[in-house]
Amino acid sequence: MTITHTHERHTEPLWLVQVDFPSGGPFGEEMAEAYSELAHSIAGESGLVWKLWTENPEAGEAGGVYLFSTREDAQAYLDKHTARLSSWGTEDIRGRVFRVNPALSRITRGLDHA
Amino acid sequence: MTITHTHERHTEPLWLVQVDFPSGGPFGEEMAEAYSELAHSIAGESGLVWKLWTENPEAGEAGGVYLFSTREDAQAYLDKHTARLSSWGTEDIRGRVFRVNPALSRITRGLDHA
Repeated sequence: MTITHTHERHTEPLWLVQVDFPSGGPFGEEMAEAYSELAHSIAGESGLVWKLWTENPEAGEAGGVYLFSTREDAQAYLDKHTARLSSWGTEDIRGRVFRVNPALSRITRGLDHA
Repeated sequence: MTITHTHERHTEPLWLVQVDFPSGGPFGEEMAEAYSELAHSIAGESGLVWKLWTENPEAGEAGGVYLFSTREDAQAYLDKHTARLSSWGTEDIRGRVFRVNPALSRITRGLDHA
């Protein structure tokens, strides 16, 4: 029997969602407690490979970087997340969807475990 | 004998460098050919865990997202890369260094293989 691990093949391009916004906190462990439930929900988003949560208390900024397996899922998530942040009163949200360049990203170990 | 895989432990925080800028290309396979040598050089940067290369021909933007094992390496790389891009005539470079929130990023599979 042959088991195919599609995530290890990268035959289709992957898509990166990049979000950041001004934030007065919470940061660190308080941030982790405040958004733990949301993180479990995000882990189940359609097409999500992974998300890294980003924070910079000194600069007053926070955000996230996400890898998605399809462009449609990436854009749909960005639209949904931007609306959610706006509903919480977050302003000046900067969101981008990028294609991941597979050949270059492989050289720099970015797709070793995608 | 005990072998310690420090990268799998995440006892120290990781640092994300986020860079993007307006770009008229090259994109896709031409981009991969143009920057293959640079990618091999970046793969050897001090403290680099991985880099994902990002591109959006429709929006006319490109960039990169990097994971580093120390804040000092992250900031030093951002300074160096920004100077390199500027020397090539790239303007409006947007660069950020963020701490990765470990607890939340673990929930969303972002540190499974960091």
